[in-house]
Amino acid sequence: MREAVPAPPECERVCVFGTGDLGRSLGLRLLQAGYGVVFGSRRPHSSSLIPHGAQVQGHAAAAQSAHLICIAVQREHYDFLVPLANQLKGKVLVDVSNNLRKNQYPESNGEYLQSLVPGAEVVKGFNTLSAWSLQNGPSDANRQVYICGDSVEAKQVVMAVATKLGLSALDRGSLSVARELEDFPLQLFPQWRLPLRIAIGLSAAFFFYLLIRDIIYAYATQGKDISFRIMVSLANKVCPIVSLIMLSLCYLPGVLASFLQLYRGTKYRRFPDWLDRWMLCRKQLGLLSLGFAFLHVLYTLILPIRYYLMFWVTEHTVSLIRENRTTMFDTTTAWRGDSYLSLGILGFGLYVLLGITSLPSVSNVLSWREFSFIQSKLGHLTLLLCTAHTYLYGWNRFLSSSIYKWYTPPGYMLCLVLPSVVLLLKLLLITPCVDRTITRIHQGWERGGGRSEEP
Amino acid sequence: MREAVPAPPECERVCVFGTGDLGRSLGLRLLQAGYGVVFGSRRPHSSSLIPHGAQVQGHAAAAQSAHLICIAVQREHYDFLVPLANQLKGKVLVDVSNNLRKNQYPESNGEYLQSLVPGAEVVKGFNTLSAWSLQNGPSDANRQVYICGDSVEAKQVVMAVATKLGLSALDRGSLSVARELEDFPLQLFPQWRLPLRIAIGLSAAFFFYLLIRDIIYAYATQGKDISFRIMVSLANKVCPIVSLIMLSLCYLPGVLASFLQLYRGTKYRRFPDWLDRWMLCRKQLGLLSLGFAFLHVLYTLILPIRYYLMFWVTEHTVSLIRENRTTMFDTTTAWRGDSYLSLGILGFGLYVLLGITSLPSVSNVLSWREFSFIQSKLGHLTLLLCTAHTYLYGWNRFLSSSIYKWYTPPGYMLCLVLPSVVLLLKLLLITPCVDRTITRIHQGWERGGGRSEEP
Amino acid sequence: MREAVPAPPECERVCVFGTGDLGRSLGLRLLQAGYGVVFGSRRPHSSSLIPHGAQVQGHAAAAQSAHLICIAVQREHYDFLVPLANQLKGKVLVDVSNNLRKNQYPESNGEYLQSLVPGAEVVKGFNTLSAWSLQNGPSDANRQVYICGDSVEAKQVVMAVATKLGLSALDRGSLSVARELEDFPLQLFPQWRLPLRIAIGLSAAFFFYLLIRDIIYAYATQGKDISFRIMVSLANKVCPIVSLIMLSLCYLPGVLASFLQLYRGTKYRRFPDWLDRWMLCRKQLGLLSLGFAFLHVLYTLILPIRYYLMFWVTEHTVSLIRENRTTMFDTTTAWRGDSYLSLGILGFGLYVLLGITSLPSVSNVLSWREFSFIQSKLGHLTLLLCTAHTYLYGWNRFLSSSIYKWYTPPGYMLCLVLPSVVLLLKLLLITPCVDRTITRIHQGWERGGGRSEEP
Repeated sequence: MREAVPAPPECERVCVFGTGDLGRSLGLRLLQAGYGVVFGSRRPHSSSLIPHGAQVQGHAAAAQSAHLICIAVQREHYDFLVPLANQLKGKVLVDVSNNLRKNQYPESNGEYLQSLVPGAEVVKGFNTLSAWSLQNGPSDANRQVYICGDSVEAKQVVMAVATKLGLSALDRGSLSVARELEDFPLQLFPQWRLPLRIAIGLSAAFFFYLLIRDIIYAYATQGKDISFRIMVSLANKVCPIVSLIMLSLCYLPGVLASFLQLYRGTKYRRFPDWLDRWMLCRKQLGLLSLGFAFLHVLYTLILPIRYYLMFWVTEHTVSLIRENRTTMFDTTTAWRGDSYLSLGILGFGLYVLLGITSLPSVSNVLSWREFSFIQSKLGHLTLLLCTAHTYLYGWNRFLSSSIYKWYTPPGYMLCLVLPSVVLLLKLLLITPCVDRTITRIHQGWERGGGRSEEP
Repeated sequence: MREAVPAPPECERVCVFGTGDLGRSLGLRLLQAGYGVVFGSRRPHSSSLIPHGAQVQGHAAAAQSAHLICIAVQREHYDFLVPLANQLKGKVLVDVSNNLRKNQYPESNGEYLQSLVPGAEVVKGFNTLSAWSLQNGPSDANRQVYICGDSVEAKQVVMAVATKLGLSALDRGSLSVARELEDFPLQLFPQWRLPLRIAIGLSAAFFFYLLIRDIIYAYATQGKDISFRIMVSLANKVCPIVSLIMLSLCYLPGVLASFLQLYRGTKYRRFPDWLDRWMLCRKQLGLLSLGFAFLHVLYTLILPIRYYLMFWVTEHTVSLIRENRTTMFDTTTAWRGDSYLSLGILGFGLYVLLGITSLPSVSNVLSWREFSFIQSKLGHLTLLLCTAHTYLYGWNRFLSSSIYKWYTPPGYMLCLVLPSVVLLLKLLLITPCVDRTITRIHQGWERGGGRSEEP
Repeated sequence: MREAVPAPPECERVCVFGTGDLGRSLGLRLLQAGYGVVFGSRRPHSSSLIPHGAQVQGHAAAAQSAHLICIAVQREHYDFLVPLANQLKGKVLVDVSNNLRKNQYPESNGEYLQSLVPGAEVVKGFNTLSAWSLQNGPSDANRQVYICGDSVEAKQVVMAVATKLGLSALDRGSLSVARELEDFPLQLFPQWRLPLRIAIGLSAAFFFYLLIRDIIYAYATQGKDISFRIMVSLANKVCPIVSLIMLSLCYLPGVLASFLQLYRGTKYRRFPDWLDRWMLCRKQLGLLSLGFAFLHVLYTLILPIRYYLMFWVTEHTVSLIRENRTTMFDTTTAWRGDSYLSLGILGFGLYVLLGITSLPSVSNVLSWREFSFIQSKLGHLTLLLCTAHTYLYGWNRFLSSSIYKWYTPPGYMLCLVLPSVVLLLKLLLITPCVDRTITRIHQGWERGGGRSEEP
């Protein structure tokens, strides 16, 4: 039911080459924003799908009627532009194209276009927009678009159009950045790669470690086949272990950075690259950790409906009767068990809160101080609760030698090392004397004379 | 504590007719954006609530002082504008009114206003903004507003105001679209209607089917009253069944569309209307399916604290003792049960991930490739896990004739039909030879010669 | 890889004083938006970290080269501006500074700056932006910024810059508002304070009440130490009680407001301040209530894996055998228990739905009617389901005198008072005759003659 009224001749015109999906959507959006739109087509009389209100002309005529020309054509067909060199001279050409995979061509599409039409001013941009997001308006899609190009004036023309389309264009520099922009729509979670690899690596390592300690040990020493435990028991050990380690990996770089600043006595020196990269993926580490914690919660909650547990409970009761034994209620066990569960629940509750506040729409309405309160104070509290939960799980079993099967420590013991270190270091950092120095450094103080936020 | 400084006379002026909630909020927002604001009122001296910094004048005087006049008055009172025809000649009138229900009046408010003041240029718009959202700024509410009108110049004036108010106006066409715009704020989840009807229909059908098979069958054949099972057991059968069917309904149209494109050999022909409509409500189908899955998880997790289960477990143990029977631990049952639970947990975990990525603020930061990876690849994996979970639930019971009460198959068997079909069709689509053709079609190739993304 | 091209001399220039984190980030962003940027520095030749494409000059020279000067320097160093009075005359100075705590200085930084350089026009603003959010673009951070200042022209210059940076600036008034703006980044959940205090107060009160009734009573009258119950049983009583009370506190003010409007016969009189404040924190009350409900669900679901419950179930079975008793299955108990659980699950499901729709990115895509349908209709339904859940929990125990230990009613009875009152009042409001009057009042009707939405 969308209808576009023909724009009067005096309003600004934009030309679109290409009447494919993207070209038509771009044209419709330009019409809606009040521009006059002229499509350039090889067969101007057979183009039936173009939006109502737009004109269609031959390429040469269309190019002459507007200063800005969007090239919504696949790169393979760019050479049709060479004979139009005269008409395109001094025009702003917007290259909106994308490729199917990285490094498909020796140079970026934008630079290729510029080399074909050296007299025009090529601006690469808008390529992160899909036909779908153009049709559905910027409220349903990302408003941020990137542009680059060698001519500042041309970029300003394109920026003005972007603003009228309800988009926010960010200048990324000269046309040599075009390849980077063309790689954007092809990227697949670049920030998630490292955290995902860590998660998969840790999961695999602990899976095999526990497989050997639990299943294979039982088979080798007692000949028992308890392989069915892989599906739930083993999964429910791997998940919390990986979750706790990743949560501490999420808070370790911040602690290391503070110690580095303390050591250097200034905040004005760059961190080493590995620390920078690590700090940039803290959010992803935390969210993956939350995912594992979520699975751990589900695996724990279904325990009582497992055949194994139901069988064991019945067996236990039956043996009590048959052997005429009685058991005494042990208050210490009850305290320990309930505390262990309660700490886990509170820790998971805070975990979920951290996850919710890292949703873009929630973190955007928080002030900087609120965001850092939640992510730092509540984050460390979550780590503390989850670590205490794991310590209570271990309890006095740490001292018993029977758990060190084949001289290996159990998984929960291994996973406590890192969080304990992080919490100890953090404790050092919040002691009054260290905290005072850190605060002064964050405010710009330098050992040996402040510098940079003075005039 | 908000305070607006009187704007100097040389800044642009906007006139607002009507000093109700909406009029005052609009005036305040205009003042904050740097406009001079003149309210038109019948009793200019008794208007005490108007924002500080605005002027109040009689209608005629107010109308003459500005080129743009917002009509924030209820439609019933529009006739006071007729005598002002001279002052309104050539002015831009913005009709921001809404109605209380659809089809309340024979013509739209915008068209009615135009008929009363034919000399002015009416633009319908801003009616999706509430007084509340105007006062709280666009960061807390939708920035996208729609306008329509017969004069392109008038619409451009209104668009410029919208931009200065931090809004993004989209031109929907001529004034005849006004009714459509006026229906916007009255609409109640139009995209959710079909999916909700499907969900309710499926739930009701399976509820009665299972009521007959489980409760009424037991009563009719054995005289047992197990009606209490309606509340949890029956609910916990209906929820997963509806959830799985709706999840497969969510992926079926995509598969059908691919086969249609394969058959036609092109992506440049429109899908039939029913398929288009179906594809547009996939997100809603998926989210409803997730809701049912969530209820299924909760219903499953409370099983062990049900009186019924606790009673049955105790009875079972007591009977073992009294009859002096022993049971053997069955590893196959343990494997099956644990796998069944584990697949369900992993499936639900992915389900939740799909739900989170369909939140607007999350999907906006994803590139198109990332979004389609999650919604397509992970979506089909979720369907696969949940289908396998259901198959394992059935296990070897499919072969036993005792489950076919009154010759009807159990619910979980019925609900497996659709997902199995979807998964089989998808399997066909991702075989290398079919996949290659599909990919080429998506890239614009056509059987019998490519066309549209060429110049 | 971000690269900024030097802007040609004819493009608009902005000067930035201060080459700290914030100054550099601001400069980079201005360059990306197409401005020419000149940094003013005391040591123009030793500033090595400034973004590529910007110039660095001495303060006096830099000030003369631009009309707009951003002061990104700490307040303690502002006095270096005094000798520059001549160069700064008539310039627009943007004070972007923040303080470390509230009331750190007698007057706001903006007013202090104005007093130092009376010849310039100071605009306070952009101080809610961090260096981090400037570098990462507005799509990752809040676009809404606030400005204030005494000169309307100066503010319009700053607003134009904000728009080009992709930000939406809101004029908050004269420079006297600067303190308020400077307090923004320091604020820590101001809207959450009251709801959090209510939550903590209620939790503490019910914790001690139940501690006395459950644990201390058992110890005092029977000498039993059941203190281990604090960790789970007591927590699982406090959470649902606080959750239900806070949910009703969330709907009570709306009901009170309606009755007040009924009593007054108009919607055009302000509500008393306490009611206004209460209504403004309904969202926070509701979300905290959801948090407590979430904990209640987790605490309930882990019940069967508690040592206490497992011990008790075994004991019960053993005693049945030893004493040769049999128990009969009680259908009424099964009905009650299952209904109780089922209502709780459905209530929690709706609760989560309410929580999701209150996420900013979700509520932004809802029309006003959809939002109010969910928050009002579904909200009251949630309250009804949760109240019924609690009544079913109590069941016939309300009549038994043995539960009134030390003449005190149990917690679940106390927490039912408020929701019952809210539901009763709401029931009154939706009776046809009252509802009709309320609807007319909401449409602007007044007892004794309508007024305000007429012209």
